[in-house]
Amino acid sequence: MATLEDIGVSAFINILTAFTFLLAFAILRIQPINDRVYFPKWYINGERASPRRSRNFVGKFVNLNVMTYFTFLNWMPQAMRRSEAEIISHAGVDSAVFLRIYTLGLKIFVPMTVLALLILIPVNVSSGTLFFLKKELVVSDIDKLSISNVRPESIRFFFHIGLQYLFTIWTCYMLYKEYDYVASMRMHFLASQPRRAEQFTVLVRSVPHVPGHSVSDTVDHFFQTNHPNHYLCHQAVYNANKYAKLVRRRDRLQNWLDYNQLKFERHPEKRPTRKIGFLGLCGERVDSIEYYKQQIKHLDKILISERQKIVKDSKYILPVAFVSFNSRWGAAVCAQTQQSKNPTLWLTNWAPEPRDVFWRNLAIPFVSLSIRKLIISLSVFALVFFYMIPIAFVQSLANLEGLERVAPFLRSVIELKFIKSFLQGFLPGLALKIFLYILPTVLMIMSKIEGHIAFSTLERKAASKYYYFMLVNVFLGSIVTGTAFEQLHSFLHQSATDIPRTIGVSIPMKATFFITYIMVDGWAGIASEILRLKPLVIFHLKNMFLVKTERDRENAMNPGSVDFPETLPSLQLYFLLGLVYAVVTPILLPFILVFFALAYLVYRHQIINVYHQQYESVAAFWPHVHSRIIASLLISQLLLMGLLSTKKAANSTPLLVVLPILTLSFHKYCKNRFEPAFRKYPLEEAMAKDILERTTEPGLNLKAYLADAYLHPIYRSFEEEEVLVQVRVDKHQTQTVSPSTSEISSPSPPRYVHHPSSPPRYVYHPPSPPHYVDHSSSSQYVYDHFSQPQYVDHPSSPPQYVYDPSSPPHDVYH
Amino acid sequence: MATLEDIGVSAFINILTAFTFLLAFAILRIQPINDRVYFPKWYINGERASPRRSRNFVGKFVNLNVMTYFTFLNWMPQAMRRSEAEIISHAGVDSAVFLRIYTLGLKIFVPMTVLALLILIPVNVSSGTLFFLKKELVVSDIDKLSISNVRPESIRFFFHIGLQYLFTIWTCYMLYKEYDYVASMRMHFLASQPRRAEQFTVLVRSVPHVPGHSVSDTVDHFFQTNHPNHYLCHQAVYNANKYAKLVRRRDRLQNWLDYNQLKFERHPEKRPTRKIGFLGLCGERVDSIEYYKQQIKHLDKILISERQKIVKDSKYILPVAFVSFNSRWGAAVCAQTQQSKNPTLWLTNWAPEPRDVFWRNLAIPFVSLSIRKLIISLSVFALVFFYMIPIAFVQSLANLEGLERVAPFLRSVIELKFIKSFLQGFLPGLALKIFLYILPTVLMIMSKIEGHIAFSTLERKAASKYYYFMLVNVFLGSIVTGTAFEQLHSFLHQSATDIPRTIGVSIPMKATFFITYIMVDGWAGIASEILRLKPLVIFHLKNMFLVKTERDRENAMNPGSVDFPETLPSLQLYFLLGLVYAVVTPILLPFILVFFALAYLVYRHQIINVYHQQYESVAAFWPHVHSRIIASLLISQLLLMGLLSTKKAANSTPLLVVLPILTLSFHKYCKNRFEPAFRKYPLEEAMAKDILERTTEPGLNLKAYLADAYLHPIYRSFEEEEVLVQVRVDKHQTQTVSPSTSEISSPSPPRYVHHPSSPPRYVYHPPSPPHYVDHSSSSQYVYDHFSQPQYVDHPSSPPQYVYDPSSPPHDVYH
Repeated sequence: MATLEDIGVSAFINILTAFTFLLAFAILRIQPINDRVYFPKWYINGERASPRRSRNFVGKFVNLNVMTYFTFLNWMPQAMRRSEAEIISHAGVDSAVFLRIYTLGLKIFVPMTVLALLILIPVNVSSGTLFFLKKELVVSDIDKLSISNVRPESIRFFFHIGLQYLFTIWTCYMLYKEYDYVASMRMHFLASQPRRAEQFTVLVRSVPHVPGHSVSDTVDHFFQTNHPNHYLCHQAVYNANKYAKLVRRRDRLQNWLDYNQLKFERHPEKRPTRKIGFLGLCGERVDSIEYYKQQIKHLDKILISERQKIVKDSKYILPVAFVSFNSRWGAAVCAQTQQSKNPTLWLTNWAPEPRDVFWRNLAIPFVSLSIRKLIISLSVFALVFFYMIPIAFVQSLANLEGLERVAPFLRSVIELKFIKSFLQGFLPGLALKIFLYILPTVLMIMSKIEGHIAFSTLERKAASKYYYFMLVNVFLGSIVTGTAFEQLHSFLHQSATDIPRTIGVSIPMKATFFITYIMVDGWAGIASEILRLKPLVIFHLKNMFLVKTERDRENAMNPGSVDFPETLPSLQLYFLLGLVYAVVTPILLPFILVFFALAYLVYRHQIINVYHQQYESVAAFWPHVHSRIIASLLISQLLLMGLLSTKKAANSTPLLVVLPILTLSFHKYCKNRFEPAFRKYPLEEAMAKDILERTTEPGLNLKAYLADAYLHPIYRSFEEEEVLVQVRVDKHQTQTVSPSTSEISSPSPPRYVHHPSSPPRYVYHPPSPPHYVDHSSSSQYVYDHFSQPQYVDHPSSPPQYVYDPSSPPHDVYH
Repeated sequence: MATLEDIGVSAFINILTAFTFLLAFAILRIQPINDRVYFPKWYINGERASPRRSRNFVGKFVNLNVMTYFTFLNWMPQAMRRSEAEIISHAGVDSAVFLRIYTLGLKIFVPMTVLALLILIPVNVSSGTLFFLKKELVVSDIDKLSISNVRPESIRFFFHIGLQYLFTIWTCYMLYKEYDYVASMRMHFLASQPRRAEQFTVLVRSVPHVPGHSVSDTVDHFFQTNHPNHYLCHQAVYNANKYAKLVRRRDRLQNWLDYNQLKFERHPEKRPTRKIGFLGLCGERVDSIEYYKQQIKHLDKILISERQKIVKDSKYILPVAFVSFNSRWGAAVCAQTQQSKNPTLWLTNWAPEPRDVFWRNLAIPFVSLSIRKLIISLSVFALVFFYMIPIAFVQSLANLEGLERVAPFLRSVIELKFIKSFLQGFLPGLALKIFLYILPTVLMIMSKIEGHIAFSTLERKAASKYYYFMLVNVFLGSIVTGTAFEQLHSFLHQSATDIPRTIGVSIPMKATFFITYIMVDGWAGIASEILRLKPLVIFHLKNMFLVKTERDRENAMNPGSVDFPETLPSLQLYFLLGLVYAVVTPILLPFILVFFALAYLVYRHQIINVYHQQYESVAAFWPHVHSRIIASLLISQLLLMGLLSTKKAANSTPLLVVLPILTLSFHKYCKNRFEPAFRKYPLEEAMAKDILERTTEPGLNLKAYLADAYLHPIYRSFEEEEVLVQVRVDKHQTQTVSPSTSEISSPSPPRYVHHPSSPPRYVYHPPSPPHYVDHSSSSQYVYDHFSQPQYVDHPSSPPQYVYDPSSPPHDVYH
């Protein structure tokens, strides 16, 4: 049991770590060489030119302006300065709403912390039971501040029960307000959005096979019959998964070719060679450049034949289509209604926006979807409860003897005593570490196997799987000793009322553990997030070995995006911890507050400067956030009930039983009231937008607008390939196919982003030219645009912090 | 513990009882005086004239044809002779599908019984463990045939497990086929249905209040904006609940007036009098006829003023409307989509058919619905688990002393020793009996409070409540001793794996109880259903005291309908018993088979001859039936698992765990595959019917057709009242307001049935004139039309057993 001093030491270490990270970030970010790592969003939005055009050579890479080092924490006020509307226009609704989760946390927990500390700490401390019990139990100082210190059967428990009521009501009230706000934000955003392809388009799956008719004919005929006044056109979907795989392989080969060519340019005395065997480790040695050129040529031939097959062979057309309507109303009707007598045919759903489509899963036949779902849910269950079994198995293999057998040349090193003892302590943990590191990827792959067809859905599903894992293995696993499987076993053999009691009893004892957890995972973890160590290293590696053109450099820069599958579940874990410990050990709350505040600042900064969302789901994840916080409330109520029943405050049970019922009915009410806003598109809204558009743009050719919105990415790559071949002939060194790390993701979406016909991004183009860069003081190194007091002078230009990409790039380093 | 002989005696008694009922029925039904009790359906369909026009006076009341007494069981083959299509046309899809539940029971259990008896009985008997254990346990003969007789850890359990697999697969297969059939039956019926108002109409609730506009204006404006090409018209809904109450009171007074007038006519020497005080027990004595006439006159005045208020005062218009569209497509679209940004406004749903609307609940404001739902679900929970508490309380009051205090004049009777001991044994049980008797009514009232707006929904909800009650109090309550509350308590304090074990162990021991239960409740109960003792008595009482005109007699005849809230749950209980005991004590299965067969015959007869469904939900209850049978399967699997785990057949658990998972996924698949057919109306279907109608009836005036389809019944009663007043002036004795027993039901639906503008009933009108009555043998008493061998001669007229109402009424008794 940790004492207060232990906590203090831990806090000191973690604060120091976090501070180190922040300091490193502050120094690294003002180096021009790292500019693309820490401000990629600006480059993508076209709001910042290259920082390299500085006068002297050193200034290109290192920031020589000493003044900027003294204001190294100024990113914090900068991050705060933007309004929510500006964040929406800059980074999208998803990001803005994501930030609102943190402010929601603050709004819920600040008053809670104040009340709990003011009321419960005196109540708990003055009880002083634990002083008498000291001999039996090992009691920490933290426990003296917790509910454990209150004598059984004490009347003081009514303080705790009363506060639990108050906290529940307060949380529900804040949740209601927030849901209301987010729903209206979503509605407002959808209403004010310009014309977009997905507003007119419905994804139709399970198109039945009519003998003698192509899929296109069937779709045309069905919708011309059943939506005669609204149907416009449709786009067939091709099964291009094999082709995409080939393209990815070609990209990898192109990367190697680029790398070798660059190597040869820099050291022209020696042509690079490689072995042609397995992984380049064995076989004949050949000239690398020639080898890769040949490989690419060979692959190009296969690609062309595959491409022709796709276009010509009707087998490659999937029984899926993007059906477009001539009005939003028509699309809304089709998306929300049942089309066919057989409810497994002609399934209609809103089409995800083109960037969001996960093309690979469109090829999954509908019949296999339910089987896939069953298998994946069983696997998730197994993963959550039995994940220790394979790890223990791997651990038993991964010992020193095994290592020596595999790699005999390491024997001399391993036999050194120091290294041996280090490895013996380190190896068994390694399997677990690796597992936890790859877990989000595994969960994402599972979601992909489940067959969801949009990235946003995939991320939400992966997030929910990760949440279950965290809940069982981090929360319950830390409270109840033993593996999750052992817990499952003991829970199955306990009565329904015993389970909350067993967990409830051990909750106060685990407070110190969770405080440390919050500091390590929350404080230091968030601080490391802002440092972006991995993208920093990868960017510089790529820069060194692959980048030849400006475009390559742009592709090497990996902005990333809010990692919903990981951040949402861990956020929800903090809500759970806060709500559970609010009444039990209120001293934990300030630690959570610090986490929420710090994370809010960091993510705000990242969203403004770094992240580039791949899609816009318009806060589609909010219902999940809401319902998981409700679930946390329910868990906290049940555990308090269990805890109090062991305190022989039996008469409190009826009082507390009311709470879950009320919470559940509140949840149901919210579901009815707000969730349709996230699932359906009201006809009133659709009609209003249709009418507005008809009056403002009477001569609009919608068909032309929609013609290639949902064109399969294969066509785009065909076009690009054509360009590529042409370009090759003229100029050997220009490469249009971008080098990229091998990803599991689909072939298409990254291509969309740069394509000129992709729908308009949410970037403001203010009418007045921006004045942010002080051209008079041109000799000065003006880096932090936002720290200029100049903005105050131009209050009339509404979105103040955004560059106009149409104006020529500013040369800030001249 | 009952021996085989005990079961035999019980079976004998119950068979005798059932036989007595059947015999009584056979004799009573062929008496002309009871014709309206046992064949009301024929009168309602207009297919039978009055049986009273016989030649001699006695023949009017008593069947003098001796021959017919010898063929008294011929109703059974008669009931079987109709095809399903004929039953649908005669009584509707609901009734036909209701009968299919019984055939489903037979289809599932006949092969199961054969297999189980052939395989399991030898396996169980030859094990013979129980002979050795006889000293410890009291073992019945039945137990020797059950799984209890198998030695623990025996390999023979694999027979049971294998059969459980087989039975599960077989049940699922039959369920799938049946669901498929019923769904296609529903689809086919809906497709072949003639034009009906509900196909074009959507019920809109939560119309928002726009200041300065009436509800009608708001509705008109909203739908003209958002469904411009499809909106046709709408009908406002008036809050006529108070008026309906007054009408019901007037009906009661009219009944009393009729009764007294009839009394006076029969005994003209003495004018009937009554006291005007409480319940006619005290106060001044007045002339009854004058008193009631005056009362009615007074009430008529109030009715007129209330009527005018409703028509003129806009406060009486509810924020609810029946919105009609110019095509089925438009209505289907509106019913399935979300209309408004605020999902609690403009809620659209398919309108129930006019006969099915429960008008009273339309006045419930939408906001209170969720609160009502919460309160009712809590009450149902309380009712299921704590219903013994108030009954025990009443029992403690309802003793002899209490009775003597309330009714001192009974003292001399009560003090007789024989009667006293009888009452002392009888009274405590009385409260429970009364409670169980009124339970369905209570559950129906609860469902009404919940706020459902269609009779069909009300009945389904009441049925599901009754099912929970039966499951907990009859099934679990019989297996585990103690009240439901005690069970709840013990279950809460048992582990999740212990619960199936506790129940599983006692299951084989309760087999004899359930066999007796099936015989008493199933066999004898069903036989008493066909006798219709209560309607018989009530009909003759009404006939004696109230009936003056032919129309009165028609109203006195109460055909009733399939009592879904009671029959569905008890049916589902038999499925549960059958599935649970199939593997455990297979000797129970034949008893269930007899029940299904007998009940099938009885209900077939009743549906053809007696019941008159008040509405047609087109088998909307099937998903409930399906899912409850699935639930029974799950329960049987869990209990077998629990039972086997006590038999130390531990290695069987993993084998059995697979079953519930498979069953659940089967259920999910069925839900996806078939349930939309019961909830939504596919656009393909709607469009096809629209197109067909447009081509066949191009000049159709749909607006006129729909104009008063959903007219509030108040308007109809206004019209009737007008007619009534007119009629009154001409002829004093003709009464149009029908006398009826005081019901809790709404004022309207019975009125619909006789209204000429109500939608067409499902009655065939065969083109060829029917030849069923042998006019040549006119002197013969031709009663059982179906027993005439004549039909065989006319195979060309398709629906053979149906009268043509358009032909003049046949005088069968001449």
